[in-house]
Amino acid sequence: MTVHTRPWRACLALLSTLLAASALDAAPLERADLAAARELRQRALSSPLAYDLVRSLTTEVGPRFAGSPGDAAAVEWAVRNLERLGFSNVRRMDVTVPHWVRGRTEVSIVEPFPQKLVAVALGGSIGTEEGGLAAEVIQVRDLEELQALDDSAVAGRIVYFSQRMDRTRDASGYGRAVQVRARGPAAAAAKGAVAVVIRTIGTSNNRIAHTGATGYVDSVPPIPAVAISNPDADLLENQLASGRPVRLSLEITARELPPARSANVIAEIPGTDRSDEIVLLGAHLDSWDITPGALDDAAGVAIVTAAARLIADMEPKPRRTIRVVLFANEEFGLSGARTYAAQGSQEIARHVLAMEADLGAGPVWMIESRVAPETLPLVRQIHSVVEPLGVALGGNETSGGADIGPLRNLGVPVLSPQLDATNYFDVHHTVNDTLDKVNPEHLSQSVAVFAVAAYLAARADAPLPHLHPVDATR
Amino acid sequence: MTVHTRPWRACLALLSTLLAASALDAAPLERADLAAARELRQRALSSPLAYDLVRSLTTEVGPRFAGSPGDAAAVEWAVRNLERLGFSNVRRMDVTVPHWVRGRTEVSIVEPFPQKLVAVALGGSIGTEEGGLAAEVIQVRDLEELQALDDSAVAGRIVYFSQRMDRTRDASGYGRAVQVRARGPAAAAAKGAVAVVIRTIGTSNNRIAHTGATGYVDSVPPIPAVAISNPDADLLENQLASGRPVRLSLEITARELPPARSANVIAEIPGTDRSDEIVLLGAHLDSWDITPGALDDAAGVAIVTAAARLIADMEPKPRRTIRVVLFANEEFGLSGARTYAAQGSQEIARHVLAMEADLGAGPVWMIESRVAPETLPLVRQIHSVVEPLGVALGGNETSGGADIGPLRNLGVPVLSPQLDATNYFDVHHTVNDTLDKVNPEHLSQSVAVFAVAAYLAARADAPLPHLHPVDATR
Repeated sequence: MTVHTRPWRACLALLSTLLAASALDAAPLERADLAAARELRQRALSSPLAYDLVRSLTTEVGPRFAGSPGDAAAVEWAVRNLERLGFSNVRRMDVTVPHWVRGRTEVSIVEPFPQKLVAVALGGSIGTEEGGLAAEVIQVRDLEELQALDDSAVAGRIVYFSQRMDRTRDASGYGRAVQVRARGPAAAAAKGAVAVVIRTIGTSNNRIAHTGATGYVDSVPPIPAVAISNPDADLLENQLASGRPVRLSLEITARELPPARSANVIAEIPGTDRSDEIVLLGAHLDSWDITPGALDDAAGVAIVTAAARLIADMEPKPRRTIRVVLFANEEFGLSGARTYAAQGSQEIARHVLAMEADLGAGPVWMIESRVAPETLPLVRQIHSVVEPLGVALGGNETSGGADIGPLRNLGVPVLSPQLDATNYFDVHHTVNDTLDKVNPEHLSQSVAVFAVAAYLAARADAPLPHLHPVDATR
Repeated sequence: MTVHTRPWRACLALLSTLLAASALDAAPLERADLAAARELRQRALSSPLAYDLVRSLTTEVGPRFAGSPGDAAAVEWAVRNLERLGFSNVRRMDVTVPHWVRGRTEVSIVEPFPQKLVAVALGGSIGTEEGGLAAEVIQVRDLEELQALDDSAVAGRIVYFSQRMDRTRDASGYGRAVQVRARGPAAAAAKGAVAVVIRTIGTSNNRIAHTGATGYVDSVPPIPAVAISNPDADLLENQLASGRPVRLSLEITARELPPARSANVIAEIPGTDRSDEIVLLGAHLDSWDITPGALDDAAGVAIVTAAARLIADMEPKPRRTIRVVLFANEEFGLSGARTYAAQGSQEIARHVLAMEADLGAGPVWMIESRVAPETLPLVRQIHSVVEPLGVALGGNETSGGADIGPLRNLGVPVLSPQLDATNYFDVHHTVNDTLDKVNPEHLSQSVAVFAVAAYLAARADAPLPHLHPVDATR
């Protein structure tokens, strides 16, 4: 939760809490709804559907990076399976996506002790010129340490960022470490570096490197950027510790192709008397190019699809429409999310709640929200049904997730079941993100939480008002 | 331990035990020796030497496969470090080694759902013809299931062996599973298969495949052979479970070059009044080509080197000579071990005990032996000093290890501190066998056990008689 440093903010927060407390008696759900939700919870815990979907997507499609043949195959897979499962209004929403291809990546220590390193190009990295490049390495911990260096110490060198990511349940370790991946190449280029090598943004000691998007700035010519695995980073540091100059060679054949076509895939469980209002369940269909993306984000696709499918069988029926959105290209620029949020204010106004699953296969350990104060009693009622699954109740300032971020910024209320990220970053954005990493029980627990939350939100009698739009540039 | 199924064997074993028990009073070591051994144990536990050696070998040399530049660099490294550490008679023993090069290995499922697989060629595999090969897969569990098939079911196909290795402390799971790697390609070729794919002989769920030697037979033309990682094996089986024909493509550019020169590296801590007798501490200097071999076998090199170095500082001095032998090319045919054992009977007769470290970085959990009955009291005294380190006393029928196997077969007594192999096969023969996998405390405990055992064997007053040679062809 955020610490309020300004008095008026603290006052507002207190006011919210008091308003919410006073609304407790006006519980927004019928007893029958809660009983049905408990039944739904139990059905979800024993349903094999989500695991079957993860297996199917990783087996039949596998890697599905924006613009690749796998991306198109994933869209076909999604349409086919959503139709097979009896969803209504299954459709594609066209999305234009960037199309970056990785090619080969070869990184070696050439001095003082030659060894090949396990490396991957960061997503969006430019390639090296033919024949590659070689230069001496300068080690810095992070962006701050880089900025403290004189440009002359960096010019002509390869900058190596050594900071190691912390393992955390709430993914905060990732949030801190990923700055180097996102901004390191541009920052190093601005000081005249010829390339960037980062210690992998990941928590495992496997000799497997983690990719992920990097970015450049228009004012500085881009330089190639790669991640090396944690053991390779250790090796590089041990060679640097010898006190002798360390030279690396890099050869990368990555390149950017013209933009390609992809699609958000949308499917619905129609509501009854409030069918015009939408409870959105989102996940992303794409993966990085090197991985079948079982956790990222086949698991999310499976969680939201299975949750919606289980809701369809419930009595009483959901009053609001449950909409599953499988977003295109989350990984390399949120293309699907931006396209979805650009539908116009009338369409966005129909969205009364958004939830996203994009942090692995669970279990859910906390529910956070960002809803109007008058909706907090509903959040608490939802929590009361999933609390026996080991779920805590968090605060009301969640960011919600990357793909529903644009909706949140437009004022759409958000409910965030927090997936346990403790081990997620062992395999995130790597070849190692495979089906065997999915724990079926954790996955089912996650389905149960998403299903209960979406169902009760779709049943609630009270309106679910929007919040003020967020200035995303703040 | 072996179960005796023949009465005369049981009788012999009983006789050994009785003889050994009667020799208990004739404890072969002085009280001062045991006190010194306890001091040695403590010094070993606090010595950083072994870990420093693993770091040095993996940082400064890395992969060191027989015949490669790394192999030559490792020999230089060993000579340099053994001299630096004050060993006597540091020398090379020339060894001719085979020289296989891996080249590229690319394996993909091409039908029904195309995906690239993480694969490595098995050591010694032939390459495919240019452009590779593609064929339908037939799945069998193991050699037995293959043999049960009619040749017509196998001819023209790629045989996939699905058996999964069991995790065990004593490496018995490896012993069972590795049969498929060693003999599968020849067995499948004999039935007309065009290639073999095995589920990796390893226990981790990482998307990293394990290499290791395979072999062919003269009577059948060889076929290419690869291992795929456990998650890739799961994927292949999930595609096979679809009921649709599964086709794989393989392209391997492996080839055999002319034999190369390498060397066993030998160094000694000279004994005093029995310096002509040798207590041998062995490990292997080579590694597979794809790995820095921190556990396999930089750890073994470090354990035996550190143990001998610590013994050199002890008072009273070892009466027998402690000889460290760092064998060439254990991995791909035991070249160094064979060369060493071919020195002639007079030289072999000088070896009164052999110990080997080649199962990771410890800890030691048991001591086994294969010694004459009259030496068993010494084994028990050794055990009494290391028992506080959590070491059990095993039987007297150990195989000892691969590199000292030829000596054992010639009748040289063997003492086997058993290194805990529970996690060893997570990284064995993979790129993932890196320094971070070495637990410094486990490594030091292992050094302590090897040091105490070698020291007390070198101090013992009683002779350490040879056993009858073993018919290794039995």
